[in-house]
Amino acid sequence: MKQFSVKIEVKLKAVVLDPQGKAVLNALGGLGFNGVSDARVGKIVELTMEGESSEEIGRKADEMCRKLLSNPVIEDFSVEIAEK
Amino acid sequence: MKQFSVKIEVKLKAVVLDPQGKAVLNALGGLGFNGVSDARVGKIVELTMEGESSEEIGRKADEMCRKLLSNPVIEDFSVEIAEK
Repeated sequence: MKQFSVKIEVKLKAVVLDPQGKAVLNALGGLGFNGVSDARVGKIVELTMEGESSEEIGRKADEMCRKLLSNPVIEDFSVEIAEK
Repeated sequence: MKQFSVKIEVKLKAVVLDPQGKAVLNALGGLGFNGVSDARVGKIVELTMEGESSEEIGRKADEMCRKLLSNPVIEDFSVEIAEK
């Protein structure tokens, strides 16, 4: 069995309003940071997984994203895999 | 003025306990996903910024992270800048 680092990024789809991003944008303005025209907030999940191949890990990670880590209706996800 | 995409990743320092990651780990186990030995959760903030140079943008982004977007006591951040 090999060990893999799996980095999953989950972001709201571009068409979905992002109130948390809006709050960040307003807070930055309030602190005097100018020149910021857009802010979007997403999440990262970093997993350590064991498996035979990066294909197997990729399939599992994809299923995890669809079942638990993202809401596919409003979010997109991407998966990066690296052997440890 | 040029436009830049700024991607900021904020993660808990490795020495800090991550209850959210622990919850993800347990939930994955409960769903029957085996072979996951660690899970850590972080956040991404994607900004669109205007400025003269990527150095200027980098300095600003760094300050934003220290003042608003991260808690430097328990979190690390990284900044990636790309011209649009």
